[in-house]
Amino acid sequence: MDKKVKKIALLTGGGDCPGLNAVIRAVTRTAIMKYGYEVIGYKFGYRGLYNNETIPLTLETVSGILHRGGTILYSSNKDNLFDYAVEEDGKIVKKDVSDVAIENLKKEGVDVLVVIGGDGTLTSARDFARKGVNVIGVPKTIDNDLAATDLTFGFYSAVDVATEALDRLHTTAESHQRVMILEVMGRNAGWIALHAGIAGSADVILIPEIPYDINRIVQKIKERARMGKFFTNIVIAEGARPKDGEVVVSKIVEDSPDPVRLGGIGNKLARELEQLIDTHEIRSTVLGHTQRGGNTSTYDRILSTRFGVAAVELINEGKFGNMVCLKGDTISYENLEKVIGHIKTVDPNGHLVQVAKSIGISFGE
Amino acid sequence: MDKKVKKIALLTGGGDCPGLNAVIRAVTRTAIMKYGYEVIGYKFGYRGLYNNETIPLTLETVSGILHRGGTILYSSNKDNLFDYAVEEDGKIVKKDVSDVAIENLKKEGVDVLVVIGGDGTLTSARDFARKGVNVIGVPKTIDNDLAATDLTFGFYSAVDVATEALDRLHTTAESHQRVMILEVMGRNAGWIALHAGIAGSADVILIPEIPYDINRIVQKIKERARMGKFFTNIVIAEGARPKDGEVVVSKIVEDSPDPVRLGGIGNKLARELEQLIDTHEIRSTVLGHTQRGGNTSTYDRILSTRFGVAAVELINEGKFGNMVCLKGDTISYENLEKVIGHIKTVDPNGHLVQVAKSIGISFGE
Amino acid sequence: MDKKVKKIALLTGGGDCPGLNAVIRAVTRTAIMKYGYEVIGYKFGYRGLYNNETIPLTLETVSGILHRGGTILYSSNKDNLFDYAVEEDGKIVKKDVSDVAIENLKKEGVDVLVVIGGDGTLTSARDFARKGVNVIGVPKTIDNDLAATDLTFGFYSAVDVATEALDRLHTTAESHQRVMILEVMGRNAGWIALHAGIAGSADVILIPEIPYDINRIVQKIKERARMGKFFTNIVIAEGARPKDGEVVVSKIVEDSPDPVRLGGIGNKLARELEQLIDTHEIRSTVLGHTQRGGNTSTYDRILSTRFGVAAVELINEGKFGNMVCLKGDTISYENLEKVIGHIKTVDPNGHLVQVAKSIGISFGE
Amino acid sequence: MDKKVKKIALLTGGGDCPGLNAVIRAVTRTAIMKYGYEVIGYKFGYRGLYNNETIPLTLETVSGILHRGGTILYSSNKDNLFDYAVEEDGKIVKKDVSDVAIENLKKEGVDVLVVIGGDGTLTSARDFARKGVNVIGVPKTIDNDLAATDLTFGFYSAVDVATEALDRLHTTAESHQRVMILEVMGRNAGWIALHAGIAGSADVILIPEIPYDINRIVQKIKERARMGKFFTNIVIAEGARPKDGEVVVSKIVEDSPDPVRLGGIGNKLARELEQLIDTHEIRSTVLGHTQRGGNTSTYDRILSTRFGVAAVELINEGKFGNMVCLKGDTISYENLEKVIGHIKTVDPNGHLVQVAKSIGISFGE
Repeated sequence: MDKKVKKIALLTGGGDCPGLNAVIRAVTRTAIMKYGYEVIGYKFGYRGLYNNETIPLTLETVSGILHRGGTILYSSNKDNLFDYAVEEDGKIVKKDVSDVAIENLKKEGVDVLVVIGGDGTLTSARDFARKGVNVIGVPKTIDNDLAATDLTFGFYSAVDVATEALDRLHTTAESHQRVMILEVMGRNAGWIALHAGIAGSADVILIPEIPYDINRIVQKIKERARMGKFFTNIVIAEGARPKDGEVVVSKIVEDSPDPVRLGGIGNKLARELEQLIDTHEIRSTVLGHTQRGGNTSTYDRILSTRFGVAAVELINEGKFGNMVCLKGDTISYENLEKVIGHIKTVDPNGHLVQVAKSIGISFGE
Repeated sequence: MDKKVKKIALLTGGGDCPGLNAVIRAVTRTAIMKYGYEVIGYKFGYRGLYNNETIPLTLETVSGILHRGGTILYSSNKDNLFDYAVEEDGKIVKKDVSDVAIENLKKEGVDVLVVIGGDGTLTSARDFARKGVNVIGVPKTIDNDLAATDLTFGFYSAVDVATEALDRLHTTAESHQRVMILEVMGRNAGWIALHAGIAGSADVILIPEIPYDINRIVQKIKERARMGKFFTNIVIAEGARPKDGEVVVSKIVEDSPDPVRLGGIGNKLARELEQLIDTHEIRSTVLGHTQRGGNTSTYDRILSTRFGVAAVELINEGKFGNMVCLKGDTISYENLEKVIGHIKTVDPNGHLVQVAKSIGISFGE
Repeated sequence: MDKKVKKIALLTGGGDCPGLNAVIRAVTRTAIMKYGYEVIGYKFGYRGLYNNETIPLTLETVSGILHRGGTILYSSNKDNLFDYAVEEDGKIVKKDVSDVAIENLKKEGVDVLVVIGGDGTLTSARDFARKGVNVIGVPKTIDNDLAATDLTFGFYSAVDVATEALDRLHTTAESHQRVMILEVMGRNAGWIALHAGIAGSADVILIPEIPYDINRIVQKIKERARMGKFFTNIVIAEGARPKDGEVVVSKIVEDSPDPVRLGGIGNKLARELEQLIDTHEIRSTVLGHTQRGGNTSTYDRILSTRFGVAAVELINEGKFGNMVCLKGDTISYENLEKVIGHIKTVDPNGHLVQVAKSIGISFGE
Repeated sequence: MDKKVKKIALLTGGGDCPGLNAVIRAVTRTAIMKYGYEVIGYKFGYRGLYNNETIPLTLETVSGILHRGGTILYSSNKDNLFDYAVEEDGKIVKKDVSDVAIENLKKEGVDVLVVIGGDGTLTSARDFARKGVNVIGVPKTIDNDLAATDLTFGFYSAVDVATEALDRLHTTAESHQRVMILEVMGRNAGWIALHAGIAGSADVILIPEIPYDINRIVQKIKERARMGKFFTNIVIAEGARPKDGEVVVSKIVEDSPDPVRLGGIGNKLARELEQLIDTHEIRSTVLGHTQRGGNTSTYDRILSTRFGVAAVELINEGKFGNMVCLKGDTISYENLEKVIGHIKTVDPNGHLVQVAKSIGISFGE
């Protein structure tokens, strides 16, 4: 590759995640102030790369955004330029438009493309790398379920929001002798529920990795009542499922194009518990997208900044086709070919589950 | 009345509300330190009065509780001693057990009963007053819908929670071009939605007092898109309803013993908007009981303290049968006979609705 | 006056105060969307009016600023165009340059000037009104010490910051048996200290309006120790002073051009208490400008928005020369001629001081 | 050692630190629920061990304390039982009273002593271990400067407080064109300043490990002004010092028994900058003990819980004389003999300093 990088471009893809702006800021400042690169951003993720919608990224543009959630570059979900919906002869057809994107990069004089996104977005990044584009990946998943990095930014911000909600529910559960259910994000991995459950003093944590038996939850509630604790706090990941393998599809779920969006599992559990327990009122809350927005937590601001600086260092060293990552407390990198498709789920026998069990938290097993 | 009050008792009734502990603390401290009264609390609201479950309230008991949500006296919903479920001959029958309560007060030597609660709880307080009990009422409603007082504690704490959620949704709505719906409390009155909507920069506020036309919401979303704003934030009170008077009962609602608990209206609106708009993704969040718990806001700590002190001053002055209240910024009181059953709803032509409209907020009319 | 207002201008003057941006946003949105006025802002307060530094205020300009502290128009302190420092013949002389400002308004086609500021800034506003300029004032003082309005925005945001600091100090004071002193803003009026002290569970509140006797504070600390409370929290307004009238000027104060800035009184009290009490460690904290910045509180966002809308309504009604204000919970207005120079201090015998004393708070009397 | 541990005791020593209660809770719950140990606590650190002031630690005692700052066991500073001040014949003499403590442990039937504290507290723990007491250490330092563990709880809570203060100062600095100085904790190590500075968007970070040249700070302020940024945010650790080695002792410092307590360095820097720069107003804030109190952050609640559980696991395995620690993201342990006296300071050439410099932060070099 040509060492003389002059211009780099950024794009953000996939769902929202606190820390995106902090990465954009760190990349931009390091690129400009340390290496003298020019920086631009593509708006709306890959869609903007296809449509060539760019904005300049300068010290001024990235001023004041460090703590803000969202992304000043905007994002889009599920836009895959290798299988992209375009209109042809009045019909919508799917086709590979990646060459249009590569042409746009050339026209714009972009030497390196920095892609900030999750597994889907990074898969496209890898595919662009295979076609010869200089790509650097920055991992983003609020669920913290990418195997190649020990942590992703946004995760602790979401845990903070969920923990604060548990704190709030705790006082009212206790005063009013209630079972409170909080549904948090996590379709495939229960990291948010696990961390927030420990931090927020939950009595029961339900995660996709450990299917639950509702009778064990009932038992826990009754045990607590016998000890004089007439309330129970349950945190449940949206992807949690009952033990018998069978997802008891309630009418709520049937009607919905996207059951998770309707708070399927938390509400479902509430209704089922109500039929099994008549001594407590049950209430459920669905945090939804409040977990993805708002100010970025202190921890995530620092991690995002470290990722952003590291991305530019990789550019400076010409190490393209890699994704920055965190190993232990060290910033490192991994080849994009190796990171795609590897999900990191909670080990049911792992350290943190053991910690939770040690202090008496039930997983509904 | 006999001026020589020696012992007073407190109880808290109804749903949770930040500030209850602050009232308990202010009553206890003022009673003990300023007037030398003895203070006890009945646990679990009226149920504890019936069962004679008391705890002493001392300077030590109320230490460290000023800022905490919930109530150290616990509460219960819907326990009316004038129509109370008791077991007789193996059957549950409803009967008036108020004389048991009055007997308990006498046995305990309680001169005055301070009742902190909403309309239901205060109705019983009035009925005890009619039977000769020295009663002081302190109003509590998170919805701020009691006509006799300009403000109730807990309300601003709930508005803070709802506003913070709107702040969070705002960044992610903007980055991802979404319509975000936040369902907040308010079955009969839209005060929380109205205040949080103004404070949290909502584009649309839907409240029970102003039935909405979904087409006007669609229009607002499209107008914003034309102005380059590809996102819209909607705050909806749980009691909001469509204009045509007809509540379009979705399956979710049919199946549920308590539609509101399932976030009926917010989710319903999300599903209907999805069918009318295909250019935006719609997401809904139900804050639920997170609005009732957690730390009490600064404003509510002060208001609760003022109410608590005022309750004891009324006792000292022998002005029983009254409820403390706030008029403008002045603490006052009102006869319990006059305060029951008067709900304060949002005036659709009132000041705050006009303020909201002036800055471009739509009410879906 | 000519009813055909077409263009209005805003400026912000004096010290920082959360809510300034919310006023700017409300004025701009109401002016444009409701009345079709054009809106511009002068940067850096009156200095910008003199230098004719303007920026257009549009729906886009004021987007996303509702919750943010600071002012997008910037501000300057102590710039009085009626006695303004200008360079003439190489020397700095003070002269009346108000005609330059009026000329600038005319050239720019500004029909009404909305001035957001404190007593000093509003004095100039009045003086411009006397010279025939159409002026509307919006009161701003973080100390809440303007007599003409019951409340000013920013005040509750500052109280929130101070209360949160007291909450923090409380846990550490209790665990480590300490006397904690928190110095808050309030040179002439103790409103912040009084409100935060009640909300933050202070044991002692020291304010300018009630000179303190240090021996009474020592006595309070000892009384608490006798009751098993080995810690005491003191909140002190920067303008608080000892009873004997004599300000015991310590060396810290002597050396400093601005003793308050160095946390004079809080540190001074700490050092003096250390000499009188050897059983407790004393620690002091100076909150300083953290009270003026950061996000605007929910309450202040609403009040600021109400003020901003009301300012435009006054313009529409042609009621110039007035300042918007809050009376009870009603938005009103007052002639600028009447509002200048009237400070609202804490009444030592007033309601809130009585409330504080009722729950056992000492004022060091 | 005897495997049959039946009773363990806890004590907390040294300065306050969010997370102490979370450790106490995790130790107690794990000990009781998982291993059936009895648990007691000594109040006031080693002083309570000497005076035999114990309280039982039960599931009830530790209920509701997870998130609370402070320590329910109270703490004391600098009480070293190997060199303890006792009264003999009317005089205060220092002597080794460790045998009294060991006798107390025996009388109480305590098999293992869990000591939560910093370097000083752990030194005594090691000395008790040398005398045959079964000891487990849990590291505590808000400054995060213990070499044997990558992280200590409380640190991120303090960073959160400092970052929030920087956020607040940022808006007001920008609006009013000021230089803001925030003094944070860190006598020997600049970790809090470094982390908060990166997270809080500081322009200058001053830490003990990198002596500063005030002229470089002035230069930075002027550079920023040339770029149109008329404000500068400086975060300074209380232990930061000027480059010339000479600590320019100001009068403030001379007079004070403890200069740091008076905010020496932050105020000193403010005064010196004022003499070098006349274009900006300078303001300084001393966060002081607000960094040590208040609610424990999510991150610290989890880390504390992990430490507490790990301490009990060490007891169960009979691995006495060790301190739990964090290596990377793994909980581990280290012999107390090896951990004492090793301070972990910021490496001026280390990763995080490089990250900060990459995004343009100055260290005043």
